[in-house]
Amino acid sequence: MSEHTPKTALTPATHTTPPAKFSHGVRKGNILQVAGQVGFLPAVEGRAPTPAGPTLREQTLQTLANVKAILEEGGASWDDAMMVRVYLTDVDHFAEMNAIYNEYFEGQGLTEPPAARTTVYVGLPAGLLIEIDVLAVLG
Amino acid sequence: MSEHTPKTALTPATHTTPPAKFSHGVRKGNILQVAGQVGFLPAVEGRAPTPAGPTLREQTLQTLANVKAILEEGGASWDDAMMVRVYLTDVDHFAEMNAIYNEYFEGQGLTEPPAARTTVYVGLPAGLLIEIDVLAVLG
Amino acid sequence: MSEHTPKTALTPATHTTPPAKFSHGVRKGNILQVAGQVGFLPAVEGRAPTPAGPTLREQTLQTLANVKAILEEGGASWDDAMMVRVYLTDVDHFAEMNAIYNEYFEGQGLTEPPAARTTVYVGLPAGLLIEIDVLAVLG
Repeated sequence: MSEHTPKTALTPATHTTPPAKFSHGVRKGNILQVAGQVGFLPAVEGRAPTPAGPTLREQTLQTLANVKAILEEGGASWDDAMMVRVYLTDVDHFAEMNAIYNEYFEGQGLTEPPAARTTVYVGLPAGLLIEIDVLAVLG
Repeated sequence: MSEHTPKTALTPATHTTPPAKFSHGVRKGNILQVAGQVGFLPAVEGRAPTPAGPTLREQTLQTLANVKAILEEGGASWDDAMMVRVYLTDVDHFAEMNAIYNEYFEGQGLTEPPAARTTVYVGLPAGLLIEIDVLAVLG
Repeated sequence: MSEHTPKTALTPATHTTPPAKFSHGVRKGNILQVAGQVGFLPAVEGRAPTPAGPTLREQTLQTLANVKAILEEGGASWDDAMMVRVYLTDVDHFAEMNAIYNEYFEGQGLTEPPAARTTVYVGLPAGLLIEIDVLAVLG
């Protein structure tokens, strides 16, 4: 007998409503996928999604916090992250992003090796400097 | 004993031949990956790949239909989709794509939460406004 | 009892040190993720990461070799590859990349269908024409 494994939507209370019919994250069995996160502050009812600030530092740290909230909502942690996709808008931000990324993960107390990562430079909506999505495998 | 799990190519009869040695989709065990799909009409022998039309609406709906055909070829459905990666060429297309996306999925009769999604803005071959790939987990 | 599946970093001796806290590849259970690879030559101590050459051909072949080294470090091969993500900087490179890609894979002796693939056009650091990452499922 083949049992159905349900797909669960991961929707942290802090997150703003997605602008379309997609989930901030989903988990099915031991696979967890985090949707592209940006540096929006925790949702406030009646306020439009608002970036943490205009700087790469503010947006990167908020984006990583937003990803982490979804991982945790699904019972995972950064230790389960397999792939981090980083989308930047400007090649000149690479070194600074790396410094912030390293500093952030030094504070996360990882007990497993860090995830793989790809960084590419794309267009993003006005005012957004970084977007990140993550594939995780639990267990 | 460790048994070999075969990787199966998913090649809907409607699809044009890929321009290189890749598969439109592959399934191995419960993991299914759909290659980047664009808004090409069903293949007609002797005709070059032809977009469904010049508009974002035509191309988005055809692209989603092309993804769905591959999911179904692999025994999956949109309910199994974990991650939808949307590549647009123009930030100004975001709102319209979301409206089409929502309308499309309202008609799909999903019984599970929608997949996660990332949308970024990249270059695509001339005339193409959207490309989508999907990771699915069956079961 | 639920046993912990460790995540293993895949670090070929030939590879240059990543510029931040990420792994060139990771494997957890039967899932293997290769980080974005570029056309850097095998690492030489004291030398900065150096592309195989200025041409798309040189960089594509080196990038594919770099991906393969990580797959093999994780006990996998191209036959296990499910998804190849190709990032180019120039739409005009598509046909040439496809020719190189086909030629390369003709020489790999695949016994399974080729992986799915998505190719998009993005910005990359100066001098780099191609970046590739791969998701593989072993077994």
